[in-house]
Amino acid sequence: MAPAITLAAETELSAANTGFMLICSALVMLMTPALAFFYGGMVRVKSTLNMLMMSFISLGIVTILWVLYGFSMAFGTDSGSIIGWSSDYVGFTGIGPADLWDGYTIPIYVFAVFQLMFAIITPALISGALADRVKFTAWALFVALWATIVYFPVAHWVWGTGGWAFELGVIDFAGGTAVHINAGAAALGVILVIGKRIGFKKDPMRPHSLPLVMLGAGLLWFGWFGFNAGSWLGNDDGVGALMFINTQIATAAAMLAWLIYEKLRHGAFTTLGAASGAVAGLVAITPAGGAVDPLGAIAVGAIAGLLCAMAVGLKYKFGYDDSLDVVGVHLVGGVVGSLLIGFFASGKGQSEVEGLFYGGGLDQFWKQCAGVFAVLAYSLVASAVLAFLIDKTIGMRVSEDDEVAGIDQAEHAETAYDFSGAGGGASRTASAPAPVAEAASKKVDA
Amino acid sequence: MAPAITLAAETELSAANTGFMLICSALVMLMTPALAFFYGGMVRVKSTLNMLMMSFISLGIVTILWVLYGFSMAFGTDSGSIIGWSSDYVGFTGIGPADLWDGYTIPIYVFAVFQLMFAIITPALISGALADRVKFTAWALFVALWATIVYFPVAHWVWGTGGWAFELGVIDFAGGTAVHINAGAAALGVILVIGKRIGFKKDPMRPHSLPLVMLGAGLLWFGWFGFNAGSWLGNDDGVGALMFINTQIATAAAMLAWLIYEKLRHGAFTTLGAASGAVAGLVAITPAGGAVDPLGAIAVGAIAGLLCAMAVGLKYKFGYDDSLDVVGVHLVGGVVGSLLIGFFASGKGQSEVEGLFYGGGLDQFWKQCAGVFAVLAYSLVASAVLAFLIDKTIGMRVSEDDEVAGIDQAEHAETAYDFSGAGGGASRTASAPAPVAEAASKKVDA
Amino acid sequence: MAPAITLAAETELSAANTGFMLICSALVMLMTPALAFFYGGMVRVKSTLNMLMMSFISLGIVTILWVLYGFSMAFGTDSGSIIGWSSDYVGFTGIGPADLWDGYTIPIYVFAVFQLMFAIITPALISGALADRVKFTAWALFVALWATIVYFPVAHWVWGTGGWAFELGVIDFAGGTAVHINAGAAALGVILVIGKRIGFKKDPMRPHSLPLVMLGAGLLWFGWFGFNAGSWLGNDDGVGALMFINTQIATAAAMLAWLIYEKLRHGAFTTLGAASGAVAGLVAITPAGGAVDPLGAIAVGAIAGLLCAMAVGLKYKFGYDDSLDVVGVHLVGGVVGSLLIGFFASGKGQSEVEGLFYGGGLDQFWKQCAGVFAVLAYSLVASAVLAFLIDKTIGMRVSEDDEVAGIDQAEHAETAYDFSGAGGGASRTASAPAPVAEAASKKVDA
Repeated sequence: MAPAITLAAETELSAANTGFMLICSALVMLMTPALAFFYGGMVRVKSTLNMLMMSFISLGIVTILWVLYGFSMAFGTDSGSIIGWSSDYVGFTGIGPADLWDGYTIPIYVFAVFQLMFAIITPALISGALADRVKFTAWALFVALWATIVYFPVAHWVWGTGGWAFELGVIDFAGGTAVHINAGAAALGVILVIGKRIGFKKDPMRPHSLPLVMLGAGLLWFGWFGFNAGSWLGNDDGVGALMFINTQIATAAAMLAWLIYEKLRHGAFTTLGAASGAVAGLVAITPAGGAVDPLGAIAVGAIAGLLCAMAVGLKYKFGYDDSLDVVGVHLVGGVVGSLLIGFFASGKGQSEVEGLFYGGGLDQFWKQCAGVFAVLAYSLVASAVLAFLIDKTIGMRVSEDDEVAGIDQAEHAETAYDFSGAGGGASRTASAPAPVAEAASKKVDA
Repeated sequence: MAPAITLAAETELSAANTGFMLICSALVMLMTPALAFFYGGMVRVKSTLNMLMMSFISLGIVTILWVLYGFSMAFGTDSGSIIGWSSDYVGFTGIGPADLWDGYTIPIYVFAVFQLMFAIITPALISGALADRVKFTAWALFVALWATIVYFPVAHWVWGTGGWAFELGVIDFAGGTAVHINAGAAALGVILVIGKRIGFKKDPMRPHSLPLVMLGAGLLWFGWFGFNAGSWLGNDDGVGALMFINTQIATAAAMLAWLIYEKLRHGAFTTLGAASGAVAGLVAITPAGGAVDPLGAIAVGAIAGLLCAMAVGLKYKFGYDDSLDVVGVHLVGGVVGSLLIGFFASGKGQSEVEGLFYGGGLDQFWKQCAGVFAVLAYSLVASAVLAFLIDKTIGMRVSEDDEVAGIDQAEHAETAYDFSGAGGGASRTASAPAPVAEAASKKVDA
Repeated sequence: MAPAITLAAETELSAANTGFMLICSALVMLMTPALAFFYGGMVRVKSTLNMLMMSFISLGIVTILWVLYGFSMAFGTDSGSIIGWSSDYVGFTGIGPADLWDGYTIPIYVFAVFQLMFAIITPALISGALADRVKFTAWALFVALWATIVYFPVAHWVWGTGGWAFELGVIDFAGGTAVHINAGAAALGVILVIGKRIGFKKDPMRPHSLPLVMLGAGLLWFGWFGFNAGSWLGNDDGVGALMFINTQIATAAAMLAWLIYEKLRHGAFTTLGAASGAVAGLVAITPAGGAVDPLGAIAVGAIAGLLCAMAVGLKYKFGYDDSLDVVGVHLVGGVVGSLLIGFFASGKGQSEVEGLFYGGGLDQFWKQCAGVFAVLAYSLVASAVLAFLIDKTIGMRVSEDDEVAGIDQAEHAETAYDFSGAGGGASRTASAPAPVAEAASKKVDA
């Protein structure tokens, strides 16, 4: 995942790095449920479960695709700087526990499962823009196609040996382009095709559970340390540690910047602002945290927090329904973090590349622009086309009635909560009309 | 925990393996609270807290028993292939920080605390079958007796040097027999004694909070990586890594299989199905994940997801109230995973044993059958007898009135939620009749 | 963090210890969100978000201060045994990824970020005593000043080379004095200045979500393993492992002790008691777990569980509104754990110091008393003065109207939950009066 500049080839398995990377993989896996809670708390109660399921299904689908062909496409032998393929990686049939990832001290299995967790969360990130209105089967199909046509190739570009961005020297430590710009641009592409929620800009659409949002944010922050520090694939030097501390610093700075902006502009420090600001900082430091120093991390975080806080209002101005701010946070934050490397790279982290403010020229900045633009454009267009094709065949959106009544009941035959039932179960919650809930209960129980 | 076949004796402490195993122990510890949320979300609101407490109390009781005699019984010097004992392990009085676990690179303290977390969660797993109706003191007594009479001996059989199943060559990487079949069979034994919930099959008994269920499932999935990969006790080779990636793969496959079955059979993809399917996959890969390859893990997961999804309906057919599907998921999933080793063992993971589909004969399958049957039968009978004895002495069930009114108030003098109180606290939730809640409040506050 | 007695100077980076410490840092970071949920579940619904934000803001503020000057004050070159300073540490400008923490095998970045997480959670702990009634800006200012004037110096006393308590030989493995007594005494100091909640001792103030409390407790328990075992800074010997197993043992013993006391005294085993007892055990073992043996850990935990359970009632007797028992659990638990080292130190853990019951005299006990008293007195007085000064300038408390109506709306323009909205969003929850909620929604969305 990291440029090959600094690490000498190793030929022995390191128990230290293997153990660390397994724990990091578990941390990154947790980010997808965390994202589910982060998004799930932000929607109205009637579409909570659908929001959760949009993330969880990615854990299922992408894992299987990764085993079958995804890892091979992303990290197999390069063809034309665009895509990889290695038949040994298909079903992992050609490798065993003793085979190490080329040039590193960890088994291929470890590299593969760590990278898998990135492939899982990236499509899940998109779902936040599509709240309340997408058929679950259409979403599942989209996840499978998008992973195949967009994520696997883009991961190859950025992190695969021979991938064009990797060879060009675009710096993306842990996924500013491949994960966040990729997901954010895809979100924009899809919502331009499928349109707004009914009631967008008219009805109040307040988060139904801010504690659930904060739980998601807290677990994302926690898991992100594995995402970021793990991307150096070991701790034989202190670069992963630099990434780790920068992750904490930028996240703190972004949270404060967002809260201050919000207080000045809207009069209150909100929990939603704290959570969103933290995520904006996490996103922005993801590509940059191995290249900048701690003071640079404050700058990256603060700038990202401010710009993302300003960006989330654009959807109202331009009228696209980026429901939970995937564009505003992941696309904008990813672009900010990726480009700021061109200014703040210190030359003392993952490589000797120096940004404009640290004695270097604009060389790295233009490389970063190339990476940003290519991923943004490809993902935006490909995702819009995919959504269009699915919409024309099986249809992307649920019916208007289902959307108004609530997608949870329509698509999942469930309601998120049932606080009735004390004293014998006679009463029912407002959110679960009796006959539907009864039917759901029977279906599930039977 | 793993057969001694592949690891040479080591005589030095490995900082890498020690650190990894400590983190894995923390991950497994987290699984018990995770289980509490998984189960707690599935019950009606009036028994939420009791469900949580049934898991948390196991963290208290089993820890103390483990220090006093449990570790000695499970991992002390073998007697008759049935039970262990080493006076040095009693209160850990005979060991210090420098003493390593025999043949491994980690301190005995590390092995002991890792194994302790398994001993804690196993009785907690049983509680899901007993929702809404068991006196808390009776449950606490059951946990203490069951750990002593069932878990400690069975752990010795399966993982203790000299234990009969261990010596026979039954493969159980991380607890298919000792944890899941053991808990599932115990659940069946107890519910045959204590009977059904009032209203079983009549009243709707829908989960009161599916987000809480998904939180539990997400944290279980996360913690399970420590449970499974940690069971190799270190990363000097790639076997733990194989186990890790197989855990992810089988879980994904099982979740998809359950969801597809459910969609075809009942018409909807439910969150409860996703959560249950994931757990079924985690259970099934637990014994098998070091023996099969990644394609085998897809098979194990998919078969387990399908069979468990079918099995959870049996309680309605046969009329036993396995309230939260402990039998359907843990017993069935554990049996499936344990037996499939006989077919899918690849010979390239933890040992050279090959299953029927990989060029071996049925030898291993019969060994697996022996392990499965012995644990299932012993746990079923012993647990039923224990429940019977407790029922005849202090009584297992709460009164009918308390069960109908809600076990939380009766046993814990609390209610799970109180969403009243905005604007001065005049209103009250339906689930907390004023006088009882007042009393509870006083008790707690005083 | 640990006395320099047992570890020889090392000059090479250990990938094993570096990786372990990074994961431990992530675990300790998670404790602050965990604390937010633990506290947030305990308050009434109308002040949930404010409780969450009081913890989250510490993640933002203290991180930035740590980078700018906090690490330098706590761990820079000693002046007069009272405070540190090293200009290299200011903004981390003088150090890079290759610089190791003196005498250890981990980069300075790793030590700095691990210690940062302690600096973050300590002020957050205080917030539990101040529920429902403190202006958010005043709290943010307090956090910044308290970290600067109280935490950074006290951390230097206890863990900094040259700090007086460190040099005296006060044993505080992971923060009994510097974290828990410090926070508990500060809480007492502040509430003596700001006074009680409106309705204290009169209105029922029941936890609005005990599942959220248990989530917090479960995640705290999980993260605390990193807090405690990580404080040895590596696993080249088994001392960190001893600390780990003792953490589990003491927590279990304390939870059981609290529950038994509560059952005998008030008639029920409550979830709030289980959660509080577990935290009391975690607090008490924090200073002591490297010094005592596992049976000693049972004693420390059981004594702390019992004494804290008794102590939380004192607020009603003496009339100070320690809203969520910060004094009762963290101050009392910290004192108990710190002093019991004088009796239970086994001489076989982190050092050869023996307590009174293990063949030593009272020497260590008197040293522990000195550490306890100094931290308690300094923190109590300094915190009260700080609160007084803030109160006289910008004011500490919200208006009475805002406190009664709910601090969430007044300070954050949000409400925690909105379970309305099924079927089109016409209805509203009781806890969100329409106009205010509408306004909040606009602010946040805009």
